[in-house]
Amino acid sequence: MSSTWGNKLKITVFGESHGTAIGVVVDGVPAGVELDVGAIKAQMARRAPGGDFSTPRKEADEPEILSGVMDGVTEGTPICAVIRNTNTKSSDYSALKDVMRPSHADYGYRVRYGEHNDYRGGGASSGRLTAPVVFAGAIARQLLAQKGIKVVSHILSVADVEDDRFGTEISEETIKSLSGSKFPMLNAEKTETAKKAIEDARKDGDSVGGRIECAVVGVPAGYGDPLFESIESVAASILFSVPAVKGIEFGNGFGIAQKRGSQANDEWYFDEGKNVKTRTNNNGGVLGGISTGMPIVFNVAIKPTASIFKEQNTVNLATGENVRFSLKGRHDPCIVVRALPVIEAAAALAVWQFVGE
Amino acid sequence: MSSTWGNKLKITVFGESHGTAIGVVVDGVPAGVELDVGAIKAQMARRAPGGDFSTPRKEADEPEILSGVMDGVTEGTPICAVIRNTNTKSSDYSALKDVMRPSHADYGYRVRYGEHNDYRGGGASSGRLTAPVVFAGAIARQLLAQKGIKVVSHILSVADVEDDRFGTEISEETIKSLSGSKFPMLNAEKTETAKKAIEDARKDGDSVGGRIECAVVGVPAGYGDPLFESIESVAASILFSVPAVKGIEFGNGFGIAQKRGSQANDEWYFDEGKNVKTRTNNNGGVLGGISTGMPIVFNVAIKPTASIFKEQNTVNLATGENVRFSLKGRHDPCIVVRALPVIEAAAALAVWQFVGE
Amino acid sequence: MSSTWGNKLKITVFGESHGTAIGVVVDGVPAGVELDVGAIKAQMARRAPGGDFSTPRKEADEPEILSGVMDGVTEGTPICAVIRNTNTKSSDYSALKDVMRPSHADYGYRVRYGEHNDYRGGGASSGRLTAPVVFAGAIARQLLAQKGIKVVSHILSVADVEDDRFGTEISEETIKSLSGSKFPMLNAEKTETAKKAIEDARKDGDSVGGRIECAVVGVPAGYGDPLFESIESVAASILFSVPAVKGIEFGNGFGIAQKRGSQANDEWYFDEGKNVKTRTNNNGGVLGGISTGMPIVFNVAIKPTASIFKEQNTVNLATGENVRFSLKGRHDPCIVVRALPVIEAAAALAVWQFVGE
Amino acid sequence: MSSTWGNKLKITVFGESHGTAIGVVVDGVPAGVELDVGAIKAQMARRAPGGDFSTPRKEADEPEILSGVMDGVTEGTPICAVIRNTNTKSSDYSALKDVMRPSHADYGYRVRYGEHNDYRGGGASSGRLTAPVVFAGAIARQLLAQKGIKVVSHILSVADVEDDRFGTEISEETIKSLSGSKFPMLNAEKTETAKKAIEDARKDGDSVGGRIECAVVGVPAGYGDPLFESIESVAASILFSVPAVKGIEFGNGFGIAQKRGSQANDEWYFDEGKNVKTRTNNNGGVLGGISTGMPIVFNVAIKPTASIFKEQNTVNLATGENVRFSLKGRHDPCIVVRALPVIEAAAALAVWQFVGE
Repeated sequence: MSSTWGNKLKITVFGESHGTAIGVVVDGVPAGVELDVGAIKAQMARRAPGGDFSTPRKEADEPEILSGVMDGVTEGTPICAVIRNTNTKSSDYSALKDVMRPSHADYGYRVRYGEHNDYRGGGASSGRLTAPVVFAGAIARQLLAQKGIKVVSHILSVADVEDDRFGTEISEETIKSLSGSKFPMLNAEKTETAKKAIEDARKDGDSVGGRIECAVVGVPAGYGDPLFESIESVAASILFSVPAVKGIEFGNGFGIAQKRGSQANDEWYFDEGKNVKTRTNNNGGVLGGISTGMPIVFNVAIKPTASIFKEQNTVNLATGENVRFSLKGRHDPCIVVRALPVIEAAAALAVWQFVGE
Repeated sequence: MSSTWGNKLKITVFGESHGTAIGVVVDGVPAGVELDVGAIKAQMARRAPGGDFSTPRKEADEPEILSGVMDGVTEGTPICAVIRNTNTKSSDYSALKDVMRPSHADYGYRVRYGEHNDYRGGGASSGRLTAPVVFAGAIARQLLAQKGIKVVSHILSVADVEDDRFGTEISEETIKSLSGSKFPMLNAEKTETAKKAIEDARKDGDSVGGRIECAVVGVPAGYGDPLFESIESVAASILFSVPAVKGIEFGNGFGIAQKRGSQANDEWYFDEGKNVKTRTNNNGGVLGGISTGMPIVFNVAIKPTASIFKEQNTVNLATGENVRFSLKGRHDPCIVVRALPVIEAAAALAVWQFVGE
Repeated sequence: MSSTWGNKLKITVFGESHGTAIGVVVDGVPAGVELDVGAIKAQMARRAPGGDFSTPRKEADEPEILSGVMDGVTEGTPICAVIRNTNTKSSDYSALKDVMRPSHADYGYRVRYGEHNDYRGGGASSGRLTAPVVFAGAIARQLLAQKGIKVVSHILSVADVEDDRFGTEISEETIKSLSGSKFPMLNAEKTETAKKAIEDARKDGDSVGGRIECAVVGVPAGYGDPLFESIESVAASILFSVPAVKGIEFGNGFGIAQKRGSQANDEWYFDEGKNVKTRTNNNGGVLGGISTGMPIVFNVAIKPTASIFKEQNTVNLATGENVRFSLKGRHDPCIVVRALPVIEAAAALAVWQFVGE
Repeated sequence: MSSTWGNKLKITVFGESHGTAIGVVVDGVPAGVELDVGAIKAQMARRAPGGDFSTPRKEADEPEILSGVMDGVTEGTPICAVIRNTNTKSSDYSALKDVMRPSHADYGYRVRYGEHNDYRGGGASSGRLTAPVVFAGAIARQLLAQKGIKVVSHILSVADVEDDRFGTEISEETIKSLSGSKFPMLNAEKTETAKKAIEDARKDGDSVGGRIECAVVGVPAGYGDPLFESIESVAASILFSVPAVKGIEFGNGFGIAQKRGSQANDEWYFDEGKNVKTRTNNNGGVLGGISTGMPIVFNVAIKPTASIFKEQNTVNLATGENVRFSLKGRHDPCIVVRALPVIEAAAALAVWQFVGE
């Protein structure tokens, strides 16, 4: 059982890449919120295929809202949104029923679900299932915004091209600038080399991975729970449901493991306005599972797109043979750019669990 | 609400570092299991204070089993184990009621729980709360062992001293060797430098962090769930509840993000026994949230002990002043060694969610 | 949060009576089940309006399956079904925004959700929301049938007309006969008087209540859990979500409270086939929360339809005045008949929690 | 998995009747509450054996609080209370390992858990497990009291002796009078006949059942949730975990099923203080799952004690024979009186789910 997540906002995702439709039920949205559907669609457009760095599969990803909203205002009842799959070419996949694509979910699913697993386009393991998550996350963002909390992210790396990291404090200007960019990086000079790394991979029929750094700015101290519902636990549980995410670190993360305590500790101070802050944010805004009042900062590792056009080795389960095969169809050379709104959506949903009513 | 975790085994942890007792209720253990209490205590001893690399606080961590076991055999009812806090010196902490220790949970807890937060020894945020998790995990290990599944870990790094990584396959011999070691590393030549890094920090009144690599060996393909109950999601949710864990990566993790798909993809093949395997294990035994049949491998970043003896800056909430302060008491210079059984316990609990009955 | 229920089958219901659509996501259906969509629709038809004893609102209640099924076979992924609201006359309700209908959910919802509560047709509190439950329950029935478990019910009473109760054992013939009937009663002689009681109420612009007795036949001994997931607890939690249900009793229920232990106790015996049975079934097939192997039998009290055409007293929240008002529109004089498939669906979902995989 | 219940207060119950101890972890109690331990013990004393109408087994039921409380004030962390089993005579039960007591959980448990089921005194199915529930409920009562909400109950019937029902409004005086009574009935004239019915059963080596009517007074309108977390659903889920409860009805319950809508509907009116109320409370203070502002009123059927001293028929699983047997030991002739604080505790826990923070 795995399609429902969350508590204050409980989301239930359904659908397969090449089925009739995908969608989500979002339960727990307070009544009386004027839903900004345009803003939701803008988030979904960031994720949708067809952008500069993505597959040519063009799909409007137009959500139809079936419930929970009357005259543009939420009713307090579950909001169901359905997105039809309009541009499915299942024929691309018929050859793949028994041939397991490397680094895809195919084989585990086949064992788990037997022959009736929907292998077309990865079925329920498809990255397409992140569209409903973005829909739900866009609602969470609106709820967070009402409390002055913002979610922002940037491309921290593509292949071996590294962006700068967020500083200890994150300005309104930075948030605005990144949010308005189709290829958000803090260090503008790195943009072209990062794009080139993607383009090079595409030309080679190959793919590249990268990292996304995400910040949730404006969460007051004192939110979160000890032990099993630490902010990190809750955030990681939804972030690791995003396909291709293979690692998560908060604050300085793996870097902190190389430090001494005297270097790593975030010292507290009263600022001039008598607010309690830390001079560094090596812990990423979370200590003991609970927010410190500093920005909640984490980054995730996104693996290179598993679908590449180079010939690969694999197995054919029907014949029992080791085989070589090549993929056809439409595949992004790098999904980091399209993953940005997904990671932000997951972060928004995670944080709302704690600050929400 | 945060003290209950899990599904097939549901564990509920309680207690504070300097209260009367800590403990755990483990619900869902099948009836009829001959519990190896000695093996449970051996795991707890690995975590207990008083070892070569740990605080001199000596506590037997003797669990009293109150329920769920009759004549040494499980009854199918919840097993409650209580560990009395016998060696608490709360006086060490009285000065800390209003002085927030850097990189500890103190401040967030104070805001979250108000003045009645148990500040003594970190209260419920103390690493001591991992003892009940080790107890529960030791039961999960026994259940896993009945299915031929083993959990093993080693010190992947201390400060800047790096051990080797697990290979694609992990031999019985490796498991045995690591399990029998008090300072388990794959590369024996690194042991002394790693120990020296800890000892150096101790002498300086400082601390060091490190990483732990953990493998769950013997999980067949097809376990796990898509989306929100991916193996990574479930494992991360409990691993991030372990104090000091700041990052998690599966398989090659952040390393994979720097690779191209053609380098990162794990190609499938039939081995001579017609088993489906991969030649590499960059994905750490999990694809699309579901096990591939290869070892499930992850590593976690453990931050340096926040408690150090060097003077630090912080705030005094009572006086509203920035202050300098020094810690007294008993603190490990490095908690990586004592964290090994905790990480293994969390891994065992996470995997049992999927392979358990 | 209230729209998700269950564990092995997790159902998430959405929609409002007069919104765009209602529907359900059913998560946890095993892969590889040939879904009998005709049987699902037959169950939904039993509940749909337009029958002999129901409102003239005619709605096909045609479910569109959006996910989880490929070529008629389940894939193991969540099944989402959507039912469009095609026959909504919201105008009937515009006068009711501020006038609270007696014994409806209106007032509590208004306080709970504020002015943005969807008051049209009761919104999410409408009996219409039981259609998705019947859809989900029809799937559970098919899963149960594969294990030889059947769900059957009959009208136990209408107003003061009482049917017989199920006997200690329930024959195949009885199950068949009740399942094939549009007005199922065990005592055929009572059918006409029961129908007349409904018709009399309809003529008077009034309504009548009744009871439904339901049995789940074929559940082996040993299913269920002690304490908080007793069969009764789980069944009651979903049965009390069915609008108009005001009471539940298992076995002899309230009757047992008047008895002595020597009359009430169900004595065990080995039958000729060495099966363990009880000579009576006063406990309704459940002891200590766990099935005894006897039929699981319970009955529920269904209150008279709250919507009646007689003039009533109530309040107008906008004017702050006590007012008299009359309802218009389409309302069943008795919902017991349409509630039969809903109660059976809830019972099937509850029992599958225990016997399901 | 069944030993954990609830959301805002999450309780985890453990222990067996004749094991080392029973107890409960109560998670979610806000920090800073001065716990009235005397009041908790007073509730536990109402349930404890040794009263006028109960078994002579004398046990102090003294809870030891292990965590969550510092200097008498809650810390916001889980409260664990342990009650040692001091007066167990397991020898009374050794003959019962294979002989299934009629109307006890023995047989289902034996099938469910196999031979390692703790059969001594019913193990985890024992009524003794309600002591931890009373402990947790006593905390919930204190939290409710801070919001002006009170829980009260009375013996509605014993055998065929019927008390009056609560009126539409329940006065402070009534609450006080019932709460102070060891044998609370509204109609004082019925007390002696009710006591006599119990005494008569005792003399005959038999037992009697009864009903308990419980009210939660002071819950404002607008609490509760539609669908699966209706107040009735949540309350019933915990009430049916209380051993011997076989039926639950809200308000007029089964009585309402015999009425016409015009008789059953609760008409709204503004009282002189402009509060919205109903003139009757046939729906027991809940409509559409949500509180109406009227007292939440329900009653439960308690079956006669299954343990009687009359000889009964049953099976011996070891010999495969039908046998006759007689019980020894200490058994209440009627558990209605001791069940009063348990039902109140369950009601308090259920209502706190909705009104709690």
